[in-house]
Amino acid sequence: MDVTPELSRREKLRDIIFGTDTKAGRYFDLGLIVCIVLSVALVFLDTIESVNSRYGTWIRIAEWGFTGIFTLEYLLRLYCSAKPWQYARSFYGVVDLLSILPSYLALFFPGANFTLVIRVLRLFRIFRVLKLLRYLSEGNVLLRAMMQSSRKVFLFFFSVSLIVMVLSAVMYVVEGPENGFSSMPQSIYWTIVTITTVGYGDITPQTPLGQGIAAFTMLIGYSIIAIPTGILTSEISQEVVRRKDLRRCSNCLKSGHELNALYCDKCGSELETDL
Amino acid sequence: MDVTPELSRREKLRDIIFGTDTKAGRYFDLGLIVCIVLSVALVFLDTIESVNSRYGTWIRIAEWGFTGIFTLEYLLRLYCSAKPWQYARSFYGVVDLLSILPSYLALFFPGANFTLVIRVLRLFRIFRVLKLLRYLSEGNVLLRAMMQSSRKVFLFFFSVSLIVMVLSAVMYVVEGPENGFSSMPQSIYWTIVTITTVGYGDITPQTPLGQGIAAFTMLIGYSIIAIPTGILTSEISQEVVRRKDLRRCSNCLKSGHELNALYCDKCGSELETDL
Amino acid sequence: MDVTPELSRREKLRDIIFGTDTKAGRYFDLGLIVCIVLSVALVFLDTIESVNSRYGTWIRIAEWGFTGIFTLEYLLRLYCSAKPWQYARSFYGVVDLLSILPSYLALFFPGANFTLVIRVLRLFRIFRVLKLLRYLSEGNVLLRAMMQSSRKVFLFFFSVSLIVMVLSAVMYVVEGPENGFSSMPQSIYWTIVTITTVGYGDITPQTPLGQGIAAFTMLIGYSIIAIPTGILTSEISQEVVRRKDLRRCSNCLKSGHELNALYCDKCGSELETDL
Amino acid sequence: MDVTPELSRREKLRDIIFGTDTKAGRYFDLGLIVCIVLSVALVFLDTIESVNSRYGTWIRIAEWGFTGIFTLEYLLRLYCSAKPWQYARSFYGVVDLLSILPSYLALFFPGANFTLVIRVLRLFRIFRVLKLLRYLSEGNVLLRAMMQSSRKVFLFFFSVSLIVMVLSAVMYVVEGPENGFSSMPQSIYWTIVTITTVGYGDITPQTPLGQGIAAFTMLIGYSIIAIPTGILTSEISQEVVRRKDLRRCSNCLKSGHELNALYCDKCGSELETDL
Repeated sequence: MDVTPELSRREKLRDIIFGTDTKAGRYFDLGLIVCIVLSVALVFLDTIESVNSRYGTWIRIAEWGFTGIFTLEYLLRLYCSAKPWQYARSFYGVVDLLSILPSYLALFFPGANFTLVIRVLRLFRIFRVLKLLRYLSEGNVLLRAMMQSSRKVFLFFFSVSLIVMVLSAVMYVVEGPENGFSSMPQSIYWTIVTITTVGYGDITPQTPLGQGIAAFTMLIGYSIIAIPTGILTSEISQEVVRRKDLRRCSNCLKSGHELNALYCDKCGSELETDL
Repeated sequence: MDVTPELSRREKLRDIIFGTDTKAGRYFDLGLIVCIVLSVALVFLDTIESVNSRYGTWIRIAEWGFTGIFTLEYLLRLYCSAKPWQYARSFYGVVDLLSILPSYLALFFPGANFTLVIRVLRLFRIFRVLKLLRYLSEGNVLLRAMMQSSRKVFLFFFSVSLIVMVLSAVMYVVEGPENGFSSMPQSIYWTIVTITTVGYGDITPQTPLGQGIAAFTMLIGYSIIAIPTGILTSEISQEVVRRKDLRRCSNCLKSGHELNALYCDKCGSELETDL
Repeated sequence: MDVTPELSRREKLRDIIFGTDTKAGRYFDLGLIVCIVLSVALVFLDTIESVNSRYGTWIRIAEWGFTGIFTLEYLLRLYCSAKPWQYARSFYGVVDLLSILPSYLALFFPGANFTLVIRVLRLFRIFRVLKLLRYLSEGNVLLRAMMQSSRKVFLFFFSVSLIVMVLSAVMYVVEGPENGFSSMPQSIYWTIVTITTVGYGDITPQTPLGQGIAAFTMLIGYSIIAIPTGILTSEISQEVVRRKDLRRCSNCLKSGHELNALYCDKCGSELETDL
Repeated sequence: MDVTPELSRREKLRDIIFGTDTKAGRYFDLGLIVCIVLSVALVFLDTIESVNSRYGTWIRIAEWGFTGIFTLEYLLRLYCSAKPWQYARSFYGVVDLLSILPSYLALFFPGANFTLVIRVLRLFRIFRVLKLLRYLSEGNVLLRAMMQSSRKVFLFFFSVSLIVMVLSAVMYVVEGPENGFSSMPQSIYWTIVTITTVGYGDITPQTPLGQGIAAFTMLIGYSIIAIPTGILTSEISQEVVRRKDLRRCSNCLKSGHELNALYCDKCGSELETDL
């Protein structure tokens, strides 16, 4: 293969930036994770009134530093990826763009006080945290178990929402606007707060009949909390068995090892772990 | 078979309205689902004071539109079902009737203000949501698992209610009316709020002894929350195994397929899915 | 065997009162259950101020009626049991006595107003509900699974109480009496309210550090809620397998039937159910 | 073996203090547990204002008594352990030191009123409870199951914290400082209170949109509560199977006994229990 030095440099960079196999690639990833965590912490500190008024200038400076780092990262990714346009439109491409855009957009609202625009821009800055998703190994047991049981979970939530609506309507009639159940959406909010056992206590039933129906709602919530657990548990157990069959010793071809075995228990050669 | 054109038209209509196999039948179902969701959303909007006062007339008009559609649907179902009387008395027949009746009944209370009658009629309008039950496939794993474990769940709730009563009586004596435990039903309401870990905070123990018993109640609730989960999980796992055996390849007669297999893993012919 | 008519009558009565095999025995049990439920409902109604002031006299009369019935039942059980003294000292003997005693004791406090004595006596009247325990089949799967896992559950609660104490002490130092954490017991009460996810909101952390520790406490509670569930689920699953082996067809001796099978799936003869 | 009497006395003491095999050793452990529980109870009582003002002197005297006992215990452990320096640096050595230090340190703050110093010293006194950890058998099923699933649980909490941050940012923008979401940390506190279904109710959404997002947050919390349960349950089930294989009868070498079997079910000789 004869590649131009230019191309080979791009490929090297790609290995560092997109890959995790080289030493430089791992250092790049580590540095990026540190930057993400620090810049998110900065956004948090910025929203605390007392911190903002005292260290505001320093936070602004550090903010621009991180924006510079992430802009550089974005441009490098665009430059060295094999298909830049495909990267730009991918989930991670959009996340990378969203994590630098707010800082530049803020330049267009120079005189803006502590208003909604500022708050929304800050919100988008938080999405930087999604850059970390890259480092969550995909295809893990949890995600696959959730995918497998997604249909049952959908059925479950559909049934729950039917129950919630009927109970909300009953409570709306029984308690009425005078006890805080001022509208159906408000009543649905109360029912969800109750059935998920959150129980803020900002809206509570006042009439004896309402309290009785509330107690019934809680007991329903208490019972059906078991259903997603049951589904997922049985799915994870199955997934574990399925994965056991997948792991096969490359030396003696024995399969069905313990999920956390590091060496084949028959011939002693190392097993690959892909959890 | 020589059927009169009249009869054959009824049969065709029946296929569309009750069946889901023809294309027209699927469109009819989809249209109906959209109507149900929209009309329920309308009932919700109607209960919000600000929306009601501004768009009241439009909501009233749309309401009558949906009532017309559901009335037409009800009459069509009555007309084309093989045994109209049996349909009318069936669960879905009653639900279909209940979803149109309130609108007509409201005509008899013309001068009614925002009173209980209006609220109750609105409640019944919400029951339209139950029309969606038709589209929940029956005989699914969840429902069967719940049926199978219903006896254990009943035993569980019986034991819980014994615990609740004894704890309520103790708290009623310890805290008394001066701390919000004004009567036994009130005390039972508090115990259920606590044992299900909802915890509104509208009634809370004030005496040290009461707080101790409350802490004990919470720990009991925390422990027994595991019991329905355990029952259901073990039931779902069994149900999954049972279903594996039920699915039989129509070509090679092999049974015991994975629950989400689409093709027979022995001969490759398609399997029927009935979840 | 030649028994005196007197003895045989006692034995007949014993069959009716203690047994459930004869028709008369089942009617006796049913009647007793109805009496227990009604008399407990009466105690509830009695504590509601408005009901008490209006129907007080009727409740008093009905109360004495039920006391009479339970007294008669107690005397009959004493009379016809083979070893009266053993019955009197047994759990059910004590419960039966406790359910009639309060009414007679109340005679000794004739002029008592709505005071603690009255409330305590009423509390004991509630214990009538424990008479229902007789009708809970013992040796069921749930109870055995709980017994089997009792040691692990104890270990679990021991660990939880260690965590609770350390967190309580930390919160007591961080928040202090000025934010409602007025003493260690109060702080422990707050920690249990939080770790069990009840969350009344009567005591809430006010300082940023306290809120951070509170969030940590909640996440711990959220995680360890899984432990009793895991223990019990695995125990119930094992118990189910164990029971499967226990059920043996009396005709063909085949064991390992489904837990809810009514007939042997090999020879078709009826199986005994003992859940 | 000829050992000097001095050495043999140290070894005897070591058997008593560190071991649990001799009768004296068990009595020593029992006495120590009683002392720990009593002294912790004393710290609790001390923080209650009314108890402190009345029995303050007695509590102080008893406190010094327990400090004396624990000092003696610490010195004895140092004296008779084979490697005193290793003991002093071990976890239990540090805990033993921490449980006596606060009392001596308090002497340096003689005139201190009810201030932070006192409270912090009291906090450290509570850590005496950690001395009980010694008596928790290690290597039990629960701990091993938690260790085994620690990686999955970490992945789970990582995903949860991503969800929490995004939801917090959205709620901060939607509700804003005027409804109690005064800063991002405050908003994160609210999200954790909601997603763990604790629900204090000290901060609640006020706008309809905020209530909608809150309801969504609750439903997410309700669903993902199942995930740690599923992981741990499947891990405990596996652990139970694994432990079955580990226990081997020392007489006939049969393995695979029931987890709570006390005797070998093949030859009847006693099994060792190591739960």
